[in-house]
Amino acid sequence: MTVETSHDPRTGVRLASVEVTHPNTLCEVTGLAAQAAPVVAATPPRERARWLEAVAADLEHPRIAGELVALADAETALGEARLVAELARTAAQLRFYASVAAEGSYLGATLDPASGTTPALGRVHVPLGPVAVFGASNFPLAFGVLGNDTASALAAGCPVVVKAHPAHPQLSRRLVDIAVWALCAAGAPDGTVGMVAGFEAGGALVRSEHVSAVAFTGSQRGGLALWQAANDRPVVIPVFAEMGTVNPVAVTPAAGRDLPTIASGFVDSFTLGTGQYCTKPGLLLAPAGRGASHLVARALADSATGGWALTEGIAAAALAGVDQLVAAGASVVGRVPGPTGGWSMPAVVLEAPLAALRAGSPLLEECFGPVALVAEYDDLAELDQLLTRLPGALAASVMTAGPDDPDTGRLVAGLSRLVGRVAVDQWPTGVAFSWAQQHGGPWPATSAPQTTSVGAAALGRFVRPVTYQQVPDAALPPALRAANPWGLPRRVGGVLS
Amino acid sequence: MTVETSHDPRTGVRLASVEVTHPNTLCEVTGLAAQAAPVVAATPPRERARWLEAVAADLEHPRIAGELVALADAETALGEARLVAELARTAAQLRFYASVAAEGSYLGATLDPASGTTPALGRVHVPLGPVAVFGASNFPLAFGVLGNDTASALAAGCPVVVKAHPAHPQLSRRLVDIAVWALCAAGAPDGTVGMVAGFEAGGALVRSEHVSAVAFTGSQRGGLALWQAANDRPVVIPVFAEMGTVNPVAVTPAAGRDLPTIASGFVDSFTLGTGQYCTKPGLLLAPAGRGASHLVARALADSATGGWALTEGIAAAALAGVDQLVAAGASVVGRVPGPTGGWSMPAVVLEAPLAALRAGSPLLEECFGPVALVAEYDDLAELDQLLTRLPGALAASVMTAGPDDPDTGRLVAGLSRLVGRVAVDQWPTGVAFSWAQQHGGPWPATSAPQTTSVGAAALGRFVRPVTYQQVPDAALPPALRAANPWGLPRRVGGVLS
Repeated sequence: MTVETSHDPRTGVRLASVEVTHPNTLCEVTGLAAQAAPVVAATPPRERARWLEAVAADLEHPRIAGELVALADAETALGEARLVAELARTAAQLRFYASVAAEGSYLGATLDPASGTTPALGRVHVPLGPVAVFGASNFPLAFGVLGNDTASALAAGCPVVVKAHPAHPQLSRRLVDIAVWALCAAGAPDGTVGMVAGFEAGGALVRSEHVSAVAFTGSQRGGLALWQAANDRPVVIPVFAEMGTVNPVAVTPAAGRDLPTIASGFVDSFTLGTGQYCTKPGLLLAPAGRGASHLVARALADSATGGWALTEGIAAAALAGVDQLVAAGASVVGRVPGPTGGWSMPAVVLEAPLAALRAGSPLLEECFGPVALVAEYDDLAELDQLLTRLPGALAASVMTAGPDDPDTGRLVAGLSRLVGRVAVDQWPTGVAFSWAQQHGGPWPATSAPQTTSVGAAALGRFVRPVTYQQVPDAALPPALRAANPWGLPRRVGGVLS
Repeated sequence: MTVETSHDPRTGVRLASVEVTHPNTLCEVTGLAAQAAPVVAATPPRERARWLEAVAADLEHPRIAGELVALADAETALGEARLVAELARTAAQLRFYASVAAEGSYLGATLDPASGTTPALGRVHVPLGPVAVFGASNFPLAFGVLGNDTASALAAGCPVVVKAHPAHPQLSRRLVDIAVWALCAAGAPDGTVGMVAGFEAGGALVRSEHVSAVAFTGSQRGGLALWQAANDRPVVIPVFAEMGTVNPVAVTPAAGRDLPTIASGFVDSFTLGTGQYCTKPGLLLAPAGRGASHLVARALADSATGGWALTEGIAAAALAGVDQLVAAGASVVGRVPGPTGGWSMPAVVLEAPLAALRAGSPLLEECFGPVALVAEYDDLAELDQLLTRLPGALAASVMTAGPDDPDTGRLVAGLSRLVGRVAVDQWPTGVAFSWAQQHGGPWPATSAPQTTSVGAAALGRFVRPVTYQQVPDAALPPALRAANPWGLPRRVGGVLS
């Protein structure tokens, strides 16, 4: 295969063919990134922040923004309104990671003066080198070529080689071109951002001696394959794979009386973006005796529609996923058909007995698309027990009867053991980017549960610490010099300053 | 095999037999750790600090200290003076990690207040759960049962299950017993520290569903086997393996005139502890034309002796390692025999042409014991080239002609790309524990190059972040409550306070 073909999900019609990367070109692209790496690493973070701001400004240029939204909509069918908002978010994210770089805490600069026989030590985080970024299908802008992974890697001082997403190859190419121009104009070296396309090029990218880390957003199958490939290298590199999960929502006993409202919110959340969110709530755990699954089915019939999948494969997998859930003991209680033509997916809600939710059951596997499961618990002890059986997930929610609900703390604590983020009276979809965000979670939600792919701490994935012992000031990296030329927050003699 | 046998390295005579752990006992020990985990995690860090201080105080009790040093010397032959100092260090480390826990920055408490449509987010690091600790043979106290890994895991809020080291099974048992009594008296729950013994129990420990992380100090073979076992689990867990490396020392051209002194320091450093340091300088890179290898050979003949290996296996591997270096193109230039009897090792220095130091060459593999290699470079360009071929290492040194040496910065920068710590005019042996320490390094020096096994940041290995979204104050963990009951440093609205 020498080309990748782009399709309109609304019709299935072919839009364009994009050439995949030849092995020689891959070597050039990764080699250029490796050459850029020391230059990018040595650039003061405030200067790199300006590079990111330059990319953000170009994305917001009305002509470019209009073109990107049209291109993205043609290749993803996500709709103009959503894509306009997502593009604005993408630019804001670039500015946020720029501000985190400029603030400088991510460098962890720490100085212990010499004392007695103990030498002077200075510790700082240094960039790992070129990062391979495999963006998501479902957020072609905010988690794509110039999304969280790329922005945080550049902010941390690493060049990026993006693997173009086969679902939106034209958009990927255009986004990289915009970044290359903006970075060049802002003074970044050649190779700061590059791209390869094609399945084989993706594999070669992970195996490239020039690549120091991999960031991935997508399916468990894809993420685990890259993780394995990286572990099979002679020099193993870290893979930060954020993979899909069934994000559970627990309704407290007291909130059972609000189930009609909760059911409606659940439908809105699991059908958002045609259910193509990694934080989609895939499992509603409701108190028994309130007819939860039928309330959800009614809300689905009242308000939801199916929609188009991003790819033919996702549409087929969603249908197969429903069949798999049924085979594993779930029953369909509501189904709304998708639109006519293209890669249409119906919205489906199923119910299953709580006892069937056993570790390893297909009922606990993600079904990507507007599909969700409802299960009822008899009492909190049964729910507590269930929580010990659920696999790791990105996010969870607790729906309560309000601030005085006596069971909120218990369920927040139980769910926090499973996930990277737990929300109260809010749905798990929607991931703000800020200092306190955590987008990750226990295995198999991610391959690196101690890291986040969204929020200020996302930079930490792309650096490693080095300590300098009795190194003269002039030979120290700027972050550790006595004059603190980068104006960093530092810990000196154990005390933050 | 139902027993592990302890030997006197000075004679090879059997000292004692210690029973290995039965599978049922392993389940009990790990189950107890899992039960303790939520209690240890919920304990305020200042209270856990007192637990660690109680263990430190018991280690320093004169009767206990004397007994431990005698037991350690019998099983390791490291000598009383060294072991007295190591025990003092072990107690001081426990107090240091206690102070890091009490200070509270390791929790990374971060609060973003709600703003517009953005929800209130609070992010904090939560303990992973029980940690399996595989201590080192070469530092039976400071990197053993109650060494850096155990101290930092407890400080971070995780119970510890230690795998007893087969080279010092009696010492391991005694250390665990001391800790169990001290922790019990200090109010820690049963299961806060436990131990298993035996090769099979070690494997089962890594596979146990109750174990959440593994910390290891030792050989590459051992570390990589545990890493692979953890990656083969249904739920993969992190392995923090600190493994042996060839730690390079580069002498600047101007420092060539000080080579006689440098040669003598090199011999002292690579024969320290009979060469059984993971930070042993295994490779001296010296300017050509100064007779570096012969100066080292002379210093060896003048001052060094061989010594006893910790185990029969280490003694045999050191001899085999010298043969392997010779087979790979090195020549022996100096050799001092070890003592008579027991697990004696000679001290050996070899030389090899710089061009023979190619990636993958056995010349770049660690030979554990008092064995080192000298190679000469013609000019700095050749040395720079070599540095790109060396594998990742824990530490490196640059020996300079003083503060005005023009090449210090160039070599510090070149070596810092390879290692976790680079020292100037000091030898890599000796790892201070403090805020700014980094003991780790690029693959294959460690399986987790973004972490450290010594220093304040060592706690970070045993926690993961969780974000709480719109969670009412009473349902938040104490670290994020409005009243800040643990008195933590926190980042609020992006600003450290």
